Amino acid sequence: MADSKTVSEKATAKQMADAIRVLSMDGVEKAKSGHPGMPMGMADVATVLFSKFLKFDASRPDWADRDRFILSAGHGSMLIYSLLHLTGYKAATKDQLSNFRQWGSKTAGHPEFGHMPGVETTTGPLGQGLANSVGFAMAERHLAARFGDDLVDHRTWVIAGDGCLMEGVSQEAIALAGRYRLNKLTVLWDDNSITIDGAVSLSDATDQKGRFKAAGWAVKAIDGHDMKAIKSALQWATRQDKPTLIACKTKIGRGAATMEGSHKTHGAALGAAEIAATRLGMAWTHEPFELPQAVDKAWKKVGKRGVKERKAWEARLNASSQASDFTRAMKGDLPAGAFDALNARIAELIETRPAQATRQSSGAALDELFAAIPELIGGSADLTGSNNTFVKGTPIFDAPTYEGRYVNWGIREFGMAAAMNGMALHGGVIPYGGTFMVFSDYSRPAIRLGALMGVRAIHVLTHDSIGLGEDGPTHQPVEHLAALRAIPNLLVFRPADTVEAMECWQAALEHKAAPSALALSRQKTPAVRTVASHENLSAKGAYEIRAAKGEAKVTLFGTGTELALALAAADALEAEGTPTRVVSVPCFELFFQQPKKYQDSVIGRGTVRVAVEAAIQQGWERFIGEDGAFVGMTGFGASAPAEVLYEKFGITTAAVVAAAKARL
Amino acid sequence: MADSKTVSEKATAKQMADAIRVLSMDGVEKAKSGHPGMPMGMADVATVLFSKFLKFDASRPDWADRDRFILSAGHGSMLIYSLLHLTGYKAATKDQLSNFRQWGSKTAGHPEFGHMPGVETTTGPLGQGLANSVGFAMAERHLAARFGDDLVDHRTWVIAGDGCLMEGVSQEAIALAGRYRLNKLTVLWDDNSITIDGAVSLSDATDQKGRFKAAGWAVKAIDGHDMKAIKSALQWATRQDKPTLIACKTKIGRGAATMEGSHKTHGAALGAAEIAATRLGMAWTHEPFELPQAVDKAWKKVGKRGVKERKAWEARLNASSQASDFTRAMKGDLPAGAFDALNARIAELIETRPAQATRQSSGAALDELFAAIPELIGGSADLTGSNNTFVKGTPIFDAPTYEGRYVNWGIREFGMAAAMNGMALHGGVIPYGGTFMVFSDYSRPAIRLGALMGVRAIHVLTHDSIGLGEDGPTHQPVEHLAALRAIPNLLVFRPADTVEAMECWQAALEHKAAPSALALSRQKTPAVRTVASHENLSAKGAYEIRAAKGEAKVTLFGTGTELALALAAADALEAEGTPTRVVSVPCFELFFQQPKKYQDSVIGRGTVRVAVEAAIQQGWERFIGEDGAFVGMTGFGASAPAEVLYEKFGITTAAVVAAAKARL
Repeated sequence: MADSKTVSEKATAKQMADAIRVLSMDGVEKAKSGHPGMPMGMADVATVLFSKFLKFDASRPDWADRDRFILSAGHGSMLIYSLLHLTGYKAATKDQLSNFRQWGSKTAGHPEFGHMPGVETTTGPLGQGLANSVGFAMAERHLAARFGDDLVDHRTWVIAGDGCLMEGVSQEAIALAGRYRLNKLTVLWDDNSITIDGAVSLSDATDQKGRFKAAGWAVKAIDGHDMKAIKSALQWATRQDKPTLIACKTKIGRGAATMEGSHKTHGAALGAAEIAATRLGMAWTHEPFELPQAVDKAWKKVGKRGVKERKAWEARLNASSQASDFTRAMKGDLPAGAFDALNARIAELIETRPAQATRQSSGAALDELFAAIPELIGGSADLTGSNNTFVKGTPIFDAPTYEGRYVNWGIREFGMAAAMNGMALHGGVIPYGGTFMVFSDYSRPAIRLGALMGVRAIHVLTHDSIGLGEDGPTHQPVEHLAALRAIPNLLVFRPADTVEAMECWQAALEHKAAPSALALSRQKTPAVRTVASHENLSAKGAYEIRAAKGEAKVTLFGTGTELALALAAADALEAEGTPTRVVSVPCFELFFQQPKKYQDSVIGRGTVRVAVEAAIQQGWERFIGEDGAFVGMTGFGASAPAEVLYEKFGITTAAVVAAAKARL
Repeated sequence: MADSKTVSEKATAKQMADAIRVLSMDGVEKAKSGHPGMPMGMADVATVLFSKFLKFDASRPDWADRDRFILSAGHGSMLIYSLLHLTGYKAATKDQLSNFRQWGSKTAGHPEFGHMPGVETTTGPLGQGLANSVGFAMAERHLAARFGDDLVDHRTWVIAGDGCLMEGVSQEAIALAGRYRLNKLTVLWDDNSITIDGAVSLSDATDQKGRFKAAGWAVKAIDGHDMKAIKSALQWATRQDKPTLIACKTKIGRGAATMEGSHKTHGAALGAAEIAATRLGMAWTHEPFELPQAVDKAWKKVGKRGVKERKAWEARLNASSQASDFTRAMKGDLPAGAFDALNARIAELIETRPAQATRQSSGAALDELFAAIPELIGGSADLTGSNNTFVKGTPIFDAPTYEGRYVNWGIREFGMAAAMNGMALHGGVIPYGGTFMVFSDYSRPAIRLGALMGVRAIHVLTHDSIGLGEDGPTHQPVEHLAALRAIPNLLVFRPADTVEAMECWQAALEHKAAPSALALSRQKTPAVRTVASHENLSAKGAYEIRAAKGEAKVTLFGTGTELALALAAADALEAEGTPTRVVSVPCFELFFQQPKKYQDSVIGRGTVRVAVEAAIQQGWERFIGEDGAFVGMTGFGASAPAEVLYEKFGITTAAVVAAAKARL
């Protein structure tokens, strides 16, 4: 990197910020796609944050006690890529910057977790980064309570834009943070008064500062281009006993020669002429992705600011009696023998065969797991008694000590799921959250992002069908199993009884790189697993739960509460002399990961195939083929007692038998 | 109805409110299921609202200029059923009350639109009733601007609970209402400090009054059991120039002998003993569902309060030159010749065959429709230029005149979709709203409720695949087509070119009782429809767009931008001597409503079947069977230019050809 006459020996903060601006506009220009306005507008704030406040060491992106930096306004991804490059993250090479938004590069259009070290979470769908950050801050406080401030003591800093704050999930997030007094969480609001369509005022007149205050935040407003004001506001933030919002009044595309302040800088390359003029205005003579030496040096120094602190922390860790437990938890490994108690319980249950709702079975699984896996932390979106998410005696997560492991998430399904993602990304905890399955529609955007990122968050979705009964079709999932199964890398479990529920919990916990959804019944269902097995059969996704007496002519598939109908139908068919096998299908996704041979052996092509599930058919064709029969729902449910609904909608043993016979 | 010694000649307001309480607790008790706490808590507020303020005539639930009453806290459904019964709505019989939550009754567990007249919208999924109400209020203001205050001048009153206010969508809703200064909207907040799990403070510490103020609302707090205070607050609300929140401090289960104020009254029957004690406390000696004569009389009088006003309004309507247009619009009928211009345009396009993105085609359809159908009103969630939702020259919907038909929805997909439902339910308008298709996850809960209610709301979902390109997997729908097709009664359209886009718009508008989702491409695609037809072929859901030369050996299915790949593959296969037909599938749902014979003729069983769609396979088995091939996505997308992504993910003409050949 050549020196430059236009940049003095020691780079000024303004020059450091301009480096972000130039890299960002050049990255977008090269890609002919992206969002330069936000990085340019927030360059000053980011410069102060990174060079004076953020606790990090560019050489150790995985330092457990680093501050977390969340770019909730993910479209401004060149901001973070620029920062990572400037501060010397090894992966953030010049090549990566100049291959922004190209196939195979780590510099995706929106920051993606797992691509570029230093990117803490995948952002872009607005509001979710902010909601993730609440989970990060919750995990930090909880782990500090568990392992002590010596090992865990860091902050979460968020950059959020007007779009993040307009999304409803932002309200759920800030209310959670306010309620739990997460004072190590700071949101830097890029208050630029611009959205894609033009002025914010076109569609919004909210007093955001007033709103955050109402949610229990400490609030400060500053000129986001005044380095001194930024510094003093960040200092102020570290002293508050509440979460903090700093409204940074900025100009979008700050520094752009003619387009500064215009929504035209938001989502498109500035163009060669504007870029040339902007360079001129900044006295920036370097080629794209080249840096003046002094600027480079200053930023690299920033990247090393945390080395000493990191080393001191490592020394403390090494000296700590909790070192191995802490390291294991942060790696996401489960304790030795994590499932011993659970498996002992399964062995018992195969004998005692209790008939109970699978939500109760899930609660029984948690009873065993909670003691064995101290990382488990979770709760319910105000349906604790219904979701069976509470383990007796668990202290409540709350300020000021945060050692509790039960979270009252409030009536905020989306905020809960997004915070769960943040917790899982932070590491050291395994989050879960309960709601009615129908409200997975509310949390769906976060479930999807969790699947994209591959985080282990466990969604406990009870009341999983018309079996919910009287609450009616607004509360009865019908399409939700199909819709959840449609999400790539999401494990959707629907256990049929207590044994399967426990096996599904185990499988969910054993999959470190995927979220899980557990579909659980409100209503009681008989025990169906009679054969003890050293294997977790549910973890195979589907398995023959009952063989035919003789060469099978019929294969019946079922999940959850309807597996009992399939078994009863098999009894009836066998009684009439029709050899019938029954396949339990607790998890489509895991089944289709099995060897082809196993899949074929389970599916039983050549037999008459009938599936039964109190939901729509979509997706079942993979089991029953084009000619198979499906007994389930074809539309919305209704309000009536569960047993009446099953009868009226024709999801009965008789219907399964009839469907099989019609095809024999 | 026998007279009662314990009730004086003229019923007091307290007695009228107690009637609600008793009916509600008895209805829930009879069903052994439901939520008595809220109706009992809000009985006083509801009594004042209905008896002094709400403009309605129980004998004409469909009076177009009635005030709208929205029970956003839908679990308290016995409140509205009681009110409808008490005020004399014909359908709200004693039998209906005593068959609460039973199969076939109109008194569903949560209020359902279309079951019981007087229920304006389906509620239960929290927050959505409030968001619907914003749409009601927007429709009212817009229609007042169009037809004049003489015909349209009514208010929207909402009862919302803590759950509604905790849901993020409430923020989107109140920010919209605040921005548009919807001063005829009043929210009566049931501020009872109780949620299902216990005290609100367990999970929330939000200063709701401060939050509403920050959103531009006028706010007042009252004792929700003080009839005088309620009356004066409602009067105050009618005088404000902003939307109004009245925080009604209430006790949940008010009047319950021992359980008043407890979360135990929230979601379960009180039980015989508590009910007996409560009756005693109220000096209520009547049997369940029987009313003291004076109370009955007083309430029936309330039901007739609006007769005079309704008749005066009818006289004004009859005298109005706009009568027929107003009546037509409110019935949801389209103007004569609504599609003449569109069809003329289609005839041209079949000749000119422009290659353009289907989002542009959708914009072109709107260009034709906007002039022809004055009820069309809509906009975009801050993606106007991307969604092609703006018709040049359209005035913006805004205070104080509201005559504009373009809505800046803001970055609030869920709030937008829920408000669209409210607008459609209000009647007189046909709402549409645009966003990126991936964000249909955000609006999904409202899309579902719209489908359940059968309202005509049109969701314009652009950037419908990896064809979105560089923004990457956070913005690329992959599972969304399957997930939307899973929702019963939702029409999911994915047009392949301009002609189909226009046909799909027409089909969407012609379906009065279903919402539609239009999946539209970001990227350019060639015109594929060459044959003029007097029929709307897209409205059949699927049709043979190209016949095979000779007896077909292969059937290729495609939608949207991938239909062009299927056509090119057919060229290649035909060139090699394999007779190949191509089927366009713009709408699964409409196709499976066609006669079986037509379906069979299109599907082409016995041929090698290959489908191509840049999305996951789920659901396509109904076309291609178990042995067919699918060319599409199996996981999330990536950030790169669109053409690179199509190549890398193997969604190409060559792949379609290869898949067919492998099966020949």
